[in-house]
Amino acid sequence: MAQEDVFKKLVSHCKEYGFVFPSSEIYDGLAAVYDYGQMGVELKNNIKKYWWDSMVLLHENIVGIDSAIFMHPTIWKASGHVDAFNDPLIDNKDSKKRYRADVLIEDCIAKMDEKIEKEVEKAAKRFGDSFDEKLFRETNPRVLEHKAKRDELHARYAQAMNDVDLNELRQIILDYEIVCPISGTKNWTDVRQFNLMFSTEMGSTADGSMKVYLRPETAQGIFVNFLNVQKTGRMRIPFGIAQIGKAFRNEIVARQFIFRMREFEQMEMQFFVRPGEELKWFAKWKETRLKWHKALGLGDQKYRFHDHEKLAHYANAATDIEFEMPFGFKEVEGIHSRTNFDLGNHEKFSGKKIQYFDPELGESYTPYVIETSIGVDRMFLSIMAAAYCEETLEGGDSRVVLRLPAALAPVKVAVMPLVRKDGLPEKAREIIDNLRFDFKCQYDEKDSIGKRYRRQDAIGTPFCVTVDHQTLEDNTVTIRFRDSMEQQRVAIDQLQNIIGEQVSLKTLLKKIVE
Amino acid sequence: MAQEDVFKKLVSHCKEYGFVFPSSEIYDGLAAVYDYGQMGVELKNNIKKYWWDSMVLLHENIVGIDSAIFMHPTIWKASGHVDAFNDPLIDNKDSKKRYRADVLIEDCIAKMDEKIEKEVEKAAKRFGDSFDEKLFRETNPRVLEHKAKRDELHARYAQAMNDVDLNELRQIILDYEIVCPISGTKNWTDVRQFNLMFSTEMGSTADGSMKVYLRPETAQGIFVNFLNVQKTGRMRIPFGIAQIGKAFRNEIVARQFIFRMREFEQMEMQFFVRPGEELKWFAKWKETRLKWHKALGLGDQKYRFHDHEKLAHYANAATDIEFEMPFGFKEVEGIHSRTNFDLGNHEKFSGKKIQYFDPELGESYTPYVIETSIGVDRMFLSIMAAAYCEETLEGGDSRVVLRLPAALAPVKVAVMPLVRKDGLPEKAREIIDNLRFDFKCQYDEKDSIGKRYRRQDAIGTPFCVTVDHQTLEDNTVTIRFRDSMEQQRVAIDQLQNIIGEQVSLKTLLKKIVE
Repeated sequence: MAQEDVFKKLVSHCKEYGFVFPSSEIYDGLAAVYDYGQMGVELKNNIKKYWWDSMVLLHENIVGIDSAIFMHPTIWKASGHVDAFNDPLIDNKDSKKRYRADVLIEDCIAKMDEKIEKEVEKAAKRFGDSFDEKLFRETNPRVLEHKAKRDELHARYAQAMNDVDLNELRQIILDYEIVCPISGTKNWTDVRQFNLMFSTEMGSTADGSMKVYLRPETAQGIFVNFLNVQKTGRMRIPFGIAQIGKAFRNEIVARQFIFRMREFEQMEMQFFVRPGEELKWFAKWKETRLKWHKALGLGDQKYRFHDHEKLAHYANAATDIEFEMPFGFKEVEGIHSRTNFDLGNHEKFSGKKIQYFDPELGESYTPYVIETSIGVDRMFLSIMAAAYCEETLEGGDSRVVLRLPAALAPVKVAVMPLVRKDGLPEKAREIIDNLRFDFKCQYDEKDSIGKRYRRQDAIGTPFCVTVDHQTLEDNTVTIRFRDSMEQQRVAIDQLQNIIGEQVSLKTLLKKIVE
Repeated sequence: MAQEDVFKKLVSHCKEYGFVFPSSEIYDGLAAVYDYGQMGVELKNNIKKYWWDSMVLLHENIVGIDSAIFMHPTIWKASGHVDAFNDPLIDNKDSKKRYRADVLIEDCIAKMDEKIEKEVEKAAKRFGDSFDEKLFRETNPRVLEHKAKRDELHARYAQAMNDVDLNELRQIILDYEIVCPISGTKNWTDVRQFNLMFSTEMGSTADGSMKVYLRPETAQGIFVNFLNVQKTGRMRIPFGIAQIGKAFRNEIVARQFIFRMREFEQMEMQFFVRPGEELKWFAKWKETRLKWHKALGLGDQKYRFHDHEKLAHYANAATDIEFEMPFGFKEVEGIHSRTNFDLGNHEKFSGKKIQYFDPELGESYTPYVIETSIGVDRMFLSIMAAAYCEETLEGGDSRVVLRLPAALAPVKVAVMPLVRKDGLPEKAREIIDNLRFDFKCQYDEKDSIGKRYRRQDAIGTPFCVTVDHQTLEDNTVTIRFRDSMEQQRVAIDQLQNIIGEQVSLKTLLKKIVE
């Protein structure tokens, strides 16, 4: 099945089984905003808890905070977002459609890349086993011609973005004859800057109201609380502050389901270190974070680092952890060495001294910062994408199964009476009454057992427990495992342990510290 | 100590120990917005988990969702918020200060009440034991005069609010000679309506952007997802949908610390029932919710119901659960019988049929709704207020201790080496390494043991474990209990059980279902 089809199926599965609904659907939706349904919210909460516990439980020197979405507007001056958090927009005068100029050019570059790949594919077919791909790429005249053209465009584009040269961006679009996908014309307006922050008016004094922004990242809430946390928590460098919360960006081109939304959730940790030690800690956090991802067991080959060659003005090292989504390897987490840029700027803009006195060195300094920043929604999507499987079973039946990590599954165990009589439903409920304090349980008595298994497979429930007539005699039940579909007869009083061992977050957390 | 002083001390304790910081403090703050610090975020998360688990773990027929803050703007037309979610504002022309007209009048009524109480107090002192308060209130001419005046004002005010008669509100202020607290003058402007919703502009198409609101309540996110959840979750009435999330109100007069904020968090559950059965369920949820509060053990006498006499246009029954705060009994939770108002209006405004087919009755209907709605921040404040104690100890020392319910405490156990040598720190860390997967631990080696106990008391840590030289010989430690300050010698391998029993949320949850 083509990856595009897999993605479509995943999106519709998310809706059909209560994971993700389009926001305001009965009002025909709100673009690039989604709601998490009854299954989605549990998976999302479990992801957040896994991250939170891995930070604040496993590290003596990391604490959390929960700062507000509303912050003083000058904070976004200090962070650079008021001046530099912009998208370059361009309108086509015929279609009246608006585009991001950078996306139009990047799409053009991607098309050039495709041409090269097509040449390679064609040649591979022609030459068969004797094909030397590396040699072909380095010597074939058509490939070299495409590549030269592509590199030239890329260099010119990178320069224009670096210089924030809007006229040059427009000129590139004209020179490369990029047309509007709707009208097919080159009738373009100028390129203008558009700030991605949402703003609103707070208060209503007789003197007027105050313009405030919805935070575009949670990180600044950590930086402005650095002194408060360090002093009241008696923290000593190196230490970290972790936060989970909503952020908002007025994306013009929001794409790919919950991958890029206007309202999204971040899990960010800022780790404060001595100046000069930041690259050592950067390396350490790269390793720690990758281990966190891999512990989920979705497949080690699905991850890769993408080190940034071009760095943001505040960074001296940066990497992405990319995950193989149905639409290619994509960033799920960023790890950045942010230097002392943010703390230094807040010192400058607020006029308050933001320094740390290091008792070992006997001196004060502005700490350097390593940031780990992960999008909850992207993480959610990557897990769903990796977990979604269509399988053909013995006998020709098929099933859709979500092979979710057991610790993250929304429902841990479904308890089912074989038939809806003879006291079996009562017995099933009795089992739930004992398990429900520890595990999210679901009771299901409708349809055949086979159909009920399919329903639980589709939401990723790791265990199904069936109560039958024998249960009434000897207090044993059948436990059925989602992935292997194996069944075992076990005593009811063993259930707590069997399930607990598999679904506990503790099991995951222990993998990280191994 | 006066209650006002207690409250001031509580607010400064919240800051000093990392529970609550004023937002954007280094930029001199942002009015009516607060951040939760390293201790506060843990307490807040524990409160949220207690509520969530009590809803979705303990009830087979309640599921959660997590809908976005951004919603389609028509939703707020349907809910009535665009037209009716207003505060009546009035300006004093001399001081240029803006006030809520209703608050000015309510303050005036409160002053009249005070006059009555002063008369009663004076008489009580004069007559001593022989004082018949009831008789006095019913017959004393001065009391009766104050009361008549007060009742007249109250009736006129209630009528004006009911009619949304802004001219009459102004006339009341003039007639009762209410003056500006700043300028002391009666030089008032007209009264104008001011909508409490924050708005922002979403998107940037060539045709313009869309005005959207930050949700003023989480409830509507549940109503517009009613069909999605009911169908994909195969829910049968009666059933509930629970949600925790941020809401925003542009309060003009924001008061009392985190009690009334512009950005706050709600935990709301909408329970869908058959028409005609709503009052039965209303009574049931009143009882269930009060039990949830009382299970925390903060003192049963601190709660009371306040049934509403005047009902909102959409309700046919409503009550508040009030808690005794340092500034009086205040609402922490509302329970409302909302009829079919919201679902019916969304059907009308969206044009989509929002009905439930009841298989037992064989008919379709618009479900009725019982809402339970609680403010996380108020709940946080009520717990902190009840937990905060200043105690004088034997020997004359004093301590501040937060008697937090153990299951909600931010740190569960502090582990301390008696001295910072002889391998005791290493042993203490070894103990933490074993406990940290289950409990938030803190390591502390600085200052005397007594000082360290005080620090843990101040953040409400239920257990302190001290490692001494004997520990190295026989693997026992001293465990010290926060409330009784008793100490016991126990084996290290008993710690997990002793602590677990007390701090587990399960223990709290079991109390509710007893």
